[in-house]
Amino acid sequence: MDKLKLQPLKGFRDFLPEEVKKRNYALDIIKKTFDLYGFEPLETPALEYKELLAGKYGEESNKLMYSFKDLGGRDVALRYDQTVPTARILAMYHQTLPMPFRRYQIQNVWRAENPQAGRFREFLQCDADIYGSYSPLADAEVIALANDLYENLGFKDFIIYINDRKILFQLMEYASIPQDLHLAVIAEIDKLDRKTNEEVFSELRNKGLSDSSIKHLFHHLDEAKPTEELLKIIDYSKSLGVREDRLNFQARLARGLDYYTSTIFEIKIKDYKAGSVLGGGRYDKLIGQLSDIEVAAVGFAVGFDRTMEAMEQFKLFPQQDKHSSVLVAVFNKKLAETSAKVVEILRRNEISAEIFPEEDAKLEKQIKYADKKGIRWFVVIGPDEKETEKAILKDLKTGKQEDIDIENLIKKIKNNV
Amino acid sequence: MDKLKLQPLKGFRDFLPEEVKKRNYALDIIKKTFDLYGFEPLETPALEYKELLAGKYGEESNKLMYSFKDLGGRDVALRYDQTVPTARILAMYHQTLPMPFRRYQIQNVWRAENPQAGRFREFLQCDADIYGSYSPLADAEVIALANDLYENLGFKDFIIYINDRKILFQLMEYASIPQDLHLAVIAEIDKLDRKTNEEVFSELRNKGLSDSSIKHLFHHLDEAKPTEELLKIIDYSKSLGVREDRLNFQARLARGLDYYTSTIFEIKIKDYKAGSVLGGGRYDKLIGQLSDIEVAAVGFAVGFDRTMEAMEQFKLFPQQDKHSSVLVAVFNKKLAETSAKVVEILRRNEISAEIFPEEDAKLEKQIKYADKKGIRWFVVIGPDEKETEKAILKDLKTGKQEDIDIENLIKKIKNNV
Repeated sequence: MDKLKLQPLKGFRDFLPEEVKKRNYALDIIKKTFDLYGFEPLETPALEYKELLAGKYGEESNKLMYSFKDLGGRDVALRYDQTVPTARILAMYHQTLPMPFRRYQIQNVWRAENPQAGRFREFLQCDADIYGSYSPLADAEVIALANDLYENLGFKDFIIYINDRKILFQLMEYASIPQDLHLAVIAEIDKLDRKTNEEVFSELRNKGLSDSSIKHLFHHLDEAKPTEELLKIIDYSKSLGVREDRLNFQARLARGLDYYTSTIFEIKIKDYKAGSVLGGGRYDKLIGQLSDIEVAAVGFAVGFDRTMEAMEQFKLFPQQDKHSSVLVAVFNKKLAETSAKVVEILRRNEISAEIFPEEDAKLEKQIKYADKKGIRWFVVIGPDEKETEKAILKDLKTGKQEDIDIENLIKKIKNNV
Repeated sequence: MDKLKLQPLKGFRDFLPEEVKKRNYALDIIKKTFDLYGFEPLETPALEYKELLAGKYGEESNKLMYSFKDLGGRDVALRYDQTVPTARILAMYHQTLPMPFRRYQIQNVWRAENPQAGRFREFLQCDADIYGSYSPLADAEVIALANDLYENLGFKDFIIYINDRKILFQLMEYASIPQDLHLAVIAEIDKLDRKTNEEVFSELRNKGLSDSSIKHLFHHLDEAKPTEELLKIIDYSKSLGVREDRLNFQARLARGLDYYTSTIFEIKIKDYKAGSVLGGGRYDKLIGQLSDIEVAAVGFAVGFDRTMEAMEQFKLFPQQDKHSSVLVAVFNKKLAETSAKVVEILRRNEISAEIFPEEDAKLEKQIKYADKKGIRWFVVIGPDEKETEKAILKDLKTGKQEDIDIENLIKKIKNNV
């Protein structure tokens, strides 16, 4: 047989145990918070009919889709986001699902992006949305949920920027910008947080806007006030527990996606430089465009990789110190069964334990293994210990060693978890 | 835009919330058991270089692989199992990983099987293996782990059938069966639990075996005794907590996969008809064939879909009764903020709660929603309740209704979880 190609594909990642554990730590908090808010999990297939996905994300995106003919000659494509598959679910099941439908979906998506810092071709999407309500209470629920997610993950200093796209559309009308340019102008406004006013000015000029239109627009952006509806959403968000100083109206906030219809928001973490970690908004037309039924929609996507990066930066993962599991060494072949029995007792007491699976390995090798794996407790039962029904317990964190009987061994480990 | 094709691809499944929750219930138990045994999670990409996967599973399998050219012209394929990707990981990281390496991997795989009852084109694989140990202790560890998985899932009556392929190879030599037919004969022996002896006899005759060889083989299969090594594994398994009556030596057990070298085992659940729910064994040559390094390997794959089916049959999922979450109704627009504040307090007390996200919905509609979603507690704050700082609490399980203040509301719900 051929020897293996020793690498994953470009833009794809292997996750070794330490990394998976960190990701699961964050995901557990995220899922628990979703549960607390009554959101329920949904899962859809990795592959869909290509015609379901194609043309739904704009031209640029079509080029980034992994699509191919399957063995039955069907045109299929890998999941590109989770909104379109959910639209299919809503169209299929809207009569049986409890509406308004709160769902979350945490699955990989695939995009043939040019791999670069922080951009991957396979990445986890983490969406929460409420379908079927036009009420500002729904907007406030997802904003409060987003806020709680980052609080529960341990972040202290973050801001929820919020805007209403209707304000932007209105300003563009005031500034006499033709309607067919509105989405393009929004895309430029969206860049104001990473480009200078001058740069955006000249980009807008290139799009065909007059200088007076642009000045007008910039002026209004600075003067704009939140809409009634936005104020209502902000009020409800506060009632739902969002701290007032976290909520920040910003007329310049535009968000990249075409399909938002009114509320838009994003979360930025202070001193984390890579951009927003969460973005969302209301998109009341999209489901109707994708399917036969009109369904209001508001929700957000967690930028999971960025969130992980920010958690790393602020050291929000639990100490990767020795975890308090146990390695029971095998002294020699004769005593292997004794060690096995001790492991069994520990596990029965809900202590994570393993036996070193060699009958004749040197203790040195076994202790090295425990150390490498971050195991804290090293237990040896030699002939003397077997005789006296004791064990040698070495704490690999402190280096301390003692003789101990099994009952106290269990107590000691349980007390030190 | 095109209207959606309203179905998933054949052989692919949508999982609606109730189903996802059941799957997660089982997966949580499985993961906790893996943790208890010191197995650590590993994740690899959905897509790999095709040459990594192709030709690794036998000819038949190649035809079932989802492969295509990506946008960069690379031949790629969707993950077909988790053993080959792990072999790549071992080849890449064997010097940094703690060896013997205990890993588990729970990810989807894709195979273009003909969809039929219980066969899907996308399904969850759930593997646990120890890499890097030839010792019977390693075999016993994975057998004990398999045993605990099914105990922890709640199964009472199941049997672990166990055999050593070396016995089969030996028997075939006694029966003068040419070596190049050994794997084909094993595949036939494997069918003895679903076909009659006569059927298998005639299949073996078709393979070119003489009648006397076959009789010889059948006779020996009935007489065979476990090897020394197998007895050792059984002993260790018992020390590690496996009940003696669960362990069942069976010389006819063959397992389908070519690559097993000695120990093979499977778990069957009494009165569950679709076959074994878990299968595994030792495969000491495979990693070396796939990569440049020799690594001993022993482990198993959980048949997750069958396991879910069996759990359904034996009603092992927790009662899908009303779950004890709360819907706080919105009496009218004026009182929406009051309801929002109550939801916030409940959540702060770690009670899963949601506000009905409409400002003017009839209470009837709201209670219907709660009922459909299986929510137990329905809370209304009308003008009188706002005045008296109370709420109406309706228990949708019993139909009982009472006036209650918020403090007692929290206590009551917490005591009824």
